[in-house]
Amino acid sequence: MNGVQYLTEIKVRGYHADFYGHVNNARYLEFFEEDRWAQLESKIDLKRWAAQGIIFLVVNINVNYRLAVPVGETLLVTTDVEKIGKRSVVLQQKILLKESRKVAADALITFVIADKSGRAVSMEGEMLQQIEKLRQIEPV
Amino acid sequence: MNGVQYLTEIKVRGYHADFYGHVNNARYLEFFEEDRWAQLESKIDLKRWAAQGIIFLVVNINVNYRLAVPVGETLLVTTDVEKIGKRSVVLQQKILLKESRKVAADALITFVIADKSGRAVSMEGEMLQQIEKLRQIEPV
Amino acid sequence: MNGVQYLTEIKVRGYHADFYGHVNNARYLEFFEEDRWAQLESKIDLKRWAAQGIIFLVVNINVNYRLAVPVGETLLVTTDVEKIGKRSVVLQQKILLKESRKVAADALITFVIADKSGRAVSMEGEMLQQIEKLRQIEPV
Amino acid sequence: MNGVQYLTEIKVRGYHADFYGHVNNARYLEFFEEDRWAQLESKIDLKRWAAQGIIFLVVNINVNYRLAVPVGETLLVTTDVEKIGKRSVVLQQKILLKESRKVAADALITFVIADKSGRAVSMEGEMLQQIEKLRQIEPV
Repeated sequence: MNGVQYLTEIKVRGYHADFYGHVNNARYLEFFEEDRWAQLESKIDLKRWAAQGIIFLVVNINVNYRLAVPVGETLLVTTDVEKIGKRSVVLQQKILLKESRKVAADALITFVIADKSGRAVSMEGEMLQQIEKLRQIEPV
Repeated sequence: MNGVQYLTEIKVRGYHADFYGHVNNARYLEFFEEDRWAQLESKIDLKRWAAQGIIFLVVNINVNYRLAVPVGETLLVTTDVEKIGKRSVVLQQKILLKESRKVAADALITFVIADKSGRAVSMEGEMLQQIEKLRQIEPV
Repeated sequence: MNGVQYLTEIKVRGYHADFYGHVNNARYLEFFEEDRWAQLESKIDLKRWAAQGIIFLVVNINVNYRLAVPVGETLLVTTDVEKIGKRSVVLQQKILLKESRKVAADALITFVIADKSGRAVSMEGEMLQQIEKLRQIEPV
Repeated sequence: MNGVQYLTEIKVRGYHADFYGHVNNARYLEFFEEDRWAQLESKIDLKRWAAQGIIFLVVNINVNYRLAVPVGETLLVTTDVEKIGKRSVVLQQKILLKESRKVAADALITFVIADKSGRAVSMEGEMLQQIEKLRQIEPV
């Protein structure tokens, strides 16, 4: 944990919370998405991929809500590779309370790489090499 | 008021509210936007416009927040034409408490019609006729 | 399917979509949440529960994104009981394209009933009876 | 402009954009709100105010949308005091493209200080002193 550089740090504001005064379920997905993009763009040349019409398509999100997070807390978001398959990638993401490092939420995110027609493509060659770079995200 | 058919009726849920337990400022803009689209598509052939690359571009929103709306309330949203100019249209929108008809928020929304290049175009001929149809929105 | 009254019907607008022109992952969770509340309040006296400090706490969401939904589509949201356990309830929710009835997304939502201290409570007696009413949601 | 420390810098992501591929109108209000809270908490002891039941109540937002901001841009948000009146404060906020410093949107935000009953209070004595500290936000 020492010295790890987090890409995504979020101070919880009133507009992140819902009626119960806690971060809303849907908002967590935005926090996870923020860190995914930050990690992807730090490792992969996304512009070249976009020019080729290749997109990341999330097909499953499985998220555990472990702690109710009140306004005023500072959160860290982490992203690690869980598994790289032939046609899909599973990422593990966590939202941590910055001070105590307690896990507020964790999620497995499964995505595929799709071409212009919207169909998932097999990851091979250079594309696979690029995807493998995600493993270089320093584990927490 | 009698018998007016509202296009947009919204029950306020926990996820619409923020830390203070009231509908959040940004969420009101979504409620206004919901009714604008409902009104526009009930009067104008938006698909033909989209096919021509013509879009509605909001250039100013001036919104008064008059009442804090708690979870559980039912809201109505209204849209009237305030002014149709040569290059811009101003709509007046209101969010009302359904039961008391008190105004929770009202707004003036100014938009222009832009072409593919993103530049505002003069409204003339058939386009102006279509825009004029917005006046047929029954006033409240 | 014939004659089933849906509580939640949503016309997909431009502000629901993201950069790819499709409904955003986080927005789906709001659509599911909308129907959960509509179903819960149609069966359960939520105000009495709230007065006792009892809340629904979502602990897991497992959602499959099956179809990319473009702007202009009309969606239906459904909620069925998957399982009522001693300390948790699992709901199955679906988002359907209204016209074709194709499933755009489905999800298992696990929640617990928590008291003022935020701890999950066992569902017994009158509370369990109320929860059992959710089974009366007409299956699709 | 040289050496000014911005509190709020935002990389525009796909989930910030709408159907048109540009940052959505409602999302801009969240960007403004983010910087308001960052500025307020850097100058004012908000926790003490909250303990006294005193809240900031936004009563008007007047926002000009000047440039369509695409995904991938980096934005800066600024907050300056426009006017401190007896019962209300007007802030001027801007969203700038980081590279060119062009103004993408600007807004006047009027808020009042309200007590537990929701009524606006006159700003005097220590409260006024605290509010005056907002002027120390370094102008851009």
